[in-house]
Parts: sequence; structure tokens; C-alpha cells
Amino acid sequence: MLKRILFGIASAILVQGLNIPLYSTDLSSKPKAKYVFYFIGDGMGLAQVSAAEAFLATNNPQIQLKSLHMSNFPVIGLSTTYAANRLITCSAAAGTALASGFKTSINTIGMDASRTASLQSVAAMAKAKGMKVGIITTVCINHATPAVFYAHRPDRNDYYTIALQLPESGFDLFGYGGIKDAKGENGDRPDAYDIAVTKGYKIIRGQKDFLSLQELPGKIIVLNDRLDEGKAVPFIIDQTPQDMPLSQFVEKSIQLLDNPEGFFMMVEGGLIDWACHSNDAATAIKEVIDLDKAIGAALDFMKLHPNETLIVVTADHETGGMAMGNALMKYESNFNLLSSQKVSESVLKKHINDFRETKCKDGCQFEEIFPLLNKYTDLGLNIPLTGFDSIQLKMAFETSMLRKIPFSEKDGIYLLYGDEEPLSVTAVKMISQKAGIGWTTWSHSGIPVPVRAKGVNQEKFGGYFDNTKIPELILEAMGISSEIFMRDGK
Amino acid sequence: MLKRILFGIASAILVQGLNIPLYSTDLSSKPKAKYVFYFIGDGMGLAQVSAAEAFLATNNPQIQLKSLHMSNFPVIGLSTTYAANRLITCSAAAGTALASGFKTSINTIGMDASRTASLQSVAAMAKAKGMKVGIITTVCINHATPAVFYAHRPDRNDYYTIALQLPESGFDLFGYGGIKDAKGENGDRPDAYDIAVTKGYKIIRGQKDFLSLQELPGKIIVLNDRLDEGKAVPFIIDQTPQDMPLSQFVEKSIQLLDNPEGFFMMVEGGLIDWACHSNDAATAIKEVIDLDKAIGAALDFMKLHPNETLIVVTADHETGGMAMGNALMKYESNFNLLSSQKVSESVLKKHINDFRETKCKDGCQFEEIFPLLNKYTDLGLNIPLTGFDSIQLKMAFETSMLRKIPFSEKDGIYLLYGDEEPLSVTAVKMISQKAGIGWTTWSHSGIPVPVRAKGVNQEKFGGYFDNTKIPELILEAMGISSEIFMRDGK
Repeated sequence: MLKRILFGIASAILVQGLNIPLYSTDLSSKPKAKYVFYFIGDGMGLAQVSAAEAFLATNNPQIQLKSLHMSNFPVIGLSTTYAANRLITCSAAAGTALASGFKTSINTIGMDASRTASLQSVAAMAKAKGMKVGIITTVCINHATPAVFYAHRPDRNDYYTIALQLPESGFDLFGYGGIKDAKGENGDRPDAYDIAVTKGYKIIRGQKDFLSLQELPGKIIVLNDRLDEGKAVPFIIDQTPQDMPLSQFVEKSIQLLDNPEGFFMMVEGGLIDWACHSNDAATAIKEVIDLDKAIGAALDFMKLHPNETLIVVTADHETGGMAMGNALMKYESNFNLLSSQKVSESVLKKHINDFRETKCKDGCQFEEIFPLLNKYTDLGLNIPLTGFDSIQLKMAFETSMLRKIPFSEKDGIYLLYGDEEPLSVTAVKMISQKAGIGWTTWSHSGIPVPVRAKGVNQEKFGGYFDNTKIPELILEAMGISSEIFMRDGK
Repeated sequence: MLKRILFGIASAILVQGLNIPLYSTDLSSKPKAKYVFYFIGDGMGLAQVSAAEAFLATNNPQIQLKSLHMSNFPVIGLSTTYAANRLITCSAAAGTALASGFKTSINTIGMDASRTASLQSVAAMAKAKGMKVGIITTVCINHATPAVFYAHRPDRNDYYTIALQLPESGFDLFGYGGIKDAKGENGDRPDAYDIAVTKGYKIIRGQKDFLSLQELPGKIIVLNDRLDEGKAVPFIIDQTPQDMPLSQFVEKSIQLLDNPEGFFMMVEGGLIDWACHSNDAATAIKEVIDLDKAIGAALDFMKLHPNETLIVVTADHETGGMAMGNALMKYESNFNLLSSQKVSESVLKKHINDFRETKCKDGCQFEEIFPLLNKYTDLGLNIPLTGFDSIQLKMAFETSMLRKIPFSEKDGIYLLYGDEEPLSVTAVKMISQKAGIGWTTWSHSGIPVPVRAKGVNQEKFGGYFDNTKIPELILEAMGISSEIFMRDGK
């Protein structure tokens, strides 16, 4: 690693102002990856993928698991995910490792562990090589995972500065969440969208304008029609025809980015992590399935360029300590039950908050919440409640509506509800429990994650290795020496 | 699979009475595995291995994980584990798949899913080929995982009949747990050890006699000096110098089984599963580390026969829904704390039961249990207790000692203590929680497990496949056509 850093410093000095790496050498005469897809399921550990397979198999009595595209990849490796300063990583540190091949400290975006030197990402190097670059995510485009591919900041929460670095990348396509804190944290800074426009970006707003594009009209930032307050695309479980599923967005992006010089496309399934933070299995699994459909679009493209394409699918970390099994279900599972959940915990929470503000303004009874619960879940309808279930729901109801905390120990309350809305999180967790899923945490876990590869250099992705190895292998597949990972001096 | 069954029936008719498969054909001119090691960590999912690596790294501030031997294997695959009739498998069904290449139903030993036809194991086929065979486990040798390699029974709990089938195998070495229910469930049947002796087996009792063997004195059944009531070897955390660690037992077994015709050795880390059923991380992790040392012994042997050896390491399933992360620790972990646990939950339970029968015969106070807890753990000493911890311990104490159940809902009680002793399981679970580990279940989970391979045919073990594929690949490595997996008509 030291060697790489030293090389990096030398390169950075040499290429200053040129934005072209000097050591872009072919390593061998093997086929080179001209088209690179880098799929990152945020929080998508092995359990999330297997749970999606179990869910997909529920309508077929002959099978227990139905393979996803990613599961049929010829090569699987396992990657450690830890940060330089913590076993359980975050998306910023893990993303930096995945983008730039260096371990860094928690919350750091594209810089080394001491937060003094900037690191060059594999996307920047692809761009420098002349490839087109797309950075795609379902969360805001200045969130940690997309940011590590173009930005360099000591703190991932500095959304505004990260947003200002976005157009400096010169990348060709960003989408399709928006820019968070586009006018700064206090809303008093120059609009980051306007700045992007002055830097040559065109803002494409919504499905209709995006899908009608026949070619890339210069550099673009694409936004979904509907974005939440954090500028994320709605969960697929909550989407309307107005929204774009990730799979649709990726399919169109492939068409737009396709060009004789090739492309590098990073696709983040960013909402898998968010759903798992709420221990919301139904929502997470549907996000995994949509990400897998996007992988299917990449596989379709690969059929046209079988010797020039590389598809890598991995995760930055696992979220939730998800397991296919829990104490109350013992050896049983019933993944079909997940279909009974009609909205994400996030949307259910909004309805519950509305109920509190309106129907429970002057107090309310437990029974009054059931019409709402029944509208969005089958709890108490097709999903019978045990006595224990009713106690849990009632306790959550009283905590949520009447601010009547069940006991004084804050650890106990945190175990039950985390920092979530008590009733909505209890409801979705109850559904996932009855489906057969268990959770250990509202945070991330430290288990290694699978790395799946298909295409140029695929054989290198087998075995057990650190996440810093992955961008090296991608560079190698593209015919770029990994020696040129560099501090770029910003 | 149908093709294999039909072949099987034909073969079974042809070989009846001969115990020699007819289709033992070389598939290619590649090197053949003359020495095969099949390590099965019962309940050892990815989390159990990674947790062991995190524990081993705790004394080194520079690293977050310290690789085990198995993690350095060149090839890793992921294997699905489900049974024919359930997503979350058991050791009998999963073991049968691993031994004989067929999916079967829960609790079935070496028979097909309908429990009518017997299946031949890869161990039986190695024996028929003239290789020596060793079946090694830390639990009783008629437990599910060892049994699937030599027995055929519709019910894994029929320990006595399984024990009677053991000497019929003609395998060369069994050890080093004992025979459970050796005189039948009611103790009124002819002694299974005596029957084994009449079938030509020699019983080697204890470390001294075993370690002093210079060569195999015919067919042997080896017993550890100390065995528990279920005829299992003590957990490594509870062992005295009188006991043999699994690693020591395997090292000696390699020496004894080594012969010009080669050997097949199945080594089960059976106690990993038992510890995880009690959510006892410290004990489970130490079992994983000892299994890994045994793998180290196999690797040492491999150095002498690099082109004729295959080592496969896998698990039948994961146990406990273990995660490296839990809600109370959030993003933190402190694996070093696991060292503060001096005995397994199983031994701690015995001491707590003794306390109840003696010191608490006429009632006792919560504070009186602390000298005992402090002797075997650092809870309340080097591990400070939060208010919430004290509440949990006190509740468990009252449930255990005073039969004062904290609340009436049986689901709530089961979530807290499973079928375990309330206080001992609360104590070990508290230690694993403070180390950073989480659990979702007292049972198994359905997540795929890693398969690691090194040696002849290793490249075939990459990717994502079903557990039934593993014995096929092992047979192929040994130069035996997998077409001859057969119903043997017993």
C-alpha cells in the first residue's frame, strides 16, 4: 500500500492540471473491459439476497429459493468491510475502499484515514481514460456511496461541499435522487444545481424528459419526479407510475452512456440500507429484487459485448444483522407474508404521524389504530395476532400516541424501537418476524459481504479478500495499472 | 437427479453383497485426490468464522480481523442448505445432502426425502475404493452429522439403531465422542460397543492409549477420557489436560490413517452448533478456532502430498442467526471481552443448578449469586453492568431460582431464555452482546454457508450452488463417477 501511495504522490505532481493519469498501461494482451458495471447494494449482505430469493420462491411449492441474476454469476468472493478505525464500517469508509482501494476512517469521503490526502476513484480514472461515467443511486447523489466516486471530504455530512465537487468530476450522468442541502445546510448558499449548470451540466427533471432522450445531451443530472425531503427516490414498494424503478433507470442509462470509448457505471441500491435500518424486510427485499433487475439489464447489454464487459456486484456492508430465522418462528418461515405489507415503514410512519396529529389529537384508544394498520398491512386480518403480538403493538401504540413509555430503561426502549417511530417499526418488524426473518441491530454489522463477478477478469474475484482489492481488480480489467491510485492533491 | 437414482438402482442390484461400486471410473487424467479431508463445522456460518477472526485480532491494534487457515483457502463458494421440506434445515437433512448428494426431509439420516430408499455416502464409496476412512466428531459418533456418512434411518433420534449400523460400515476410525444410547433408549438392549467389538472393532479409551498408537490396530472406535451425558467431548473452553482438543485428535488420526491407498476423513466441529444454540459466543468461537487448528494439521499433511490432497471446509447450516453487531452496541464492538468468560454456558448452568439445590434451597437473594458469576465471568467486575443489565440479570435470577416468572406471555419468556437455563444463558448472552455480537434465534438459520476448498479440483468449488453438489465434486476429485451415488437397498 505504501508503494501505491508513493506512486500516487508522484503521479499527482506529474498530472496536475491535466486530469490524465500517466501510468495507463496495458497489463497484458487479455481482453479489456470497455464496459464496466459496478453495482453496490448498500447494506446488502448475504442475508438480504437470500431472503429475496426465499421471497421469490414463495409462489412455487417445488423450490425453497429462486435464484437472482446475481446469484448465477460464475464467480463469488467474500470481502471484508471493516474501516481503518472500526470493525463495523459505514458507507463513507467502505465506499472509499470500494472506489479508491484504500482503507479510511469512519465518515471520510475519498480521503485517506488521516483525512489529509485525497484519493482518486476508479470512476475518475475511467473518465481520464476517455470512458463515459455514470453515477447512479436511489438516494441523494451527494450521499456517501455516490460521493466517494467523485468527492473528497473529511466528513460525509458536509453535503453542500460534496455537491459543489460533483460537477468538478466532469462525469457524464448523475441520477436519479437529487442533491441534498443544495443551498447549504441553512439554505443560504448559492444553489448547487445552478453551479452545476454553470459547469456545463443539464438538469433533466422527471421520467418523461429522461426516457425521451435519444442520446446524451452533454453532461446531465437526472432527477426522479418525486423525491423525499432527503432527496431520495421513493422505495419501490411506495412507487407510483410517476416514479422510475432503478431497473428502468439503469436500462435507459446504459443506452445513453453506450459509446465507442466505453463506459463505467456505478449503480447503488441505496435504499436497501435505509429499509434495513428500520428492520423493514418487505421493503428491503423489494429493493434487492429491483437492483437485481438492473443487473439483468447489464447482463442483457453484456450479451452484445461478451468479451469487453465486466459486471461486479457487491455491498459496502450488511445492515441490520438480518437473519433467515428468529426465536419465535424457530425452524419455520413464511416469506409469503411479506406481501401483506403494502408500504414501507417510512410511509407507514407518515400515516401514523398524521393519525396522531388528527384523530388522536385529544387522545385515542388502541382499537382506533386498526383501520389504518389494516389498510397498509394484514396485521390482525390475514395475519392473526397472538397475545404477545397484541401486547407489543399496544405498548408501541401507547408509546407513540400517548407518550406512555412502557418502562424507564432507555436501553430497553432502544432495543424495541431504536430511533424509529415505535408503532410503524413494531408493525413492520412483526411482519418480518412472522415471515421468518430476524434482526440484531438498527445499525450495520461487520460480516463480510459477497462479491460477484462476471466478465473480463472475473476469475480474480474469487476467494476471501479485503474490499480495497475490488477497485484494483476493476482497474486491472480495464487495463489500467492499479499503481496509479493516487492522492490528487486537492 | 433422476438419472442418478436410476443408475443407483441398477448399481445397487449389481453390487448387492459386494459392497463395491461398479462405476468407479477415472473421469480424466488430472491428478486424483488420494487424501480427502471433509471438515464440517456444525452451525458454522460466515458469522461464526468472522467472529473468530475478530476475536483473534483483539490483541493486535493494527488489524480488525486475523485470518484463519480456512479463510486463506484459494477458493470460496456459497452453498444453499435448505432441506427438501423446509427452508431452515437440520443437521440430518443437511448432512445427508453433504454426504450423499441428495436433498432429503428433516431428521432423515442417509435416506431419500420419502424415507424409503437408502443413499450411499461419499465415505462409503471411498471405503469401497480401498481408501481408509475416518469419521471424527466432538459430539457422539451416532449424532446426525457423523451418522449420515454410514447410517440409514428415517429418524435421527433413533440413536441405538444408528449405533448398530456404525460397525457395518467397516470404516477404520471413529472418534472421539462416544455412542449415545449404547444400550438403547431404555438401557435394556445389547451394548452397541460390544456389538462393534464382535464386528471387529477395538475400543480405544482415552488420550493416553490413543496418542501412544504407532499405527492403526485394525478398526477402532476412540473415546475421549471425559464425555458428557450425551457422550460429547467437553467444549474446548471447558477442557482439562485430560481431554483432547479436536486439533490434536485430527493430527494423530492423520498419522494413523495415512497409507498408500489414501484416506477419506470427515471431521465435524459438532460443538459449534451446540454453543450457538445457547447463543454462547465465547464458547462457539473457541470451537471454531480449534476446528481451524485441525484444518492447519490437514494443511501440514497437504504440504507432503500437494498434488494428491483435497481439503473441503463447509457447514451444514448456520446456528443462532449470529451477527457481528447488535442494537445496544450500535457500531461498536469489543471482542476482547469474550476472554472474560471462563466456562461454557453448559458448565455455568451446572454450577447455577448446584447453587439452586444447595445455597438457594431455602430461598436466596440476588446478590448471593455474584460470587459464582464472578468466578466464571467478569460480569460486574471488569465488565461493568448498566441498570438495564442488572434488571435483566435479576429477572433471570428470579426466574431461575425463585420460579418467579417476569411476565405471563410464554413467547416473551421464550425470546428471553429459549429452552435454556435462564440465568446462565442471560449471562453468556450479555457477554456476547457487550463484545458486539447479536443473535436472532435459538435454532438454525437459513442463510447459505461458505464452502472453502484447497487442492485437487479446488476450482470447481467456486460460485453459488446447492449443498448436494459438494459430495459430487469430492467424488470427482477422487476419480469416482458421481453417477454411482446409489440407493443401496438396505
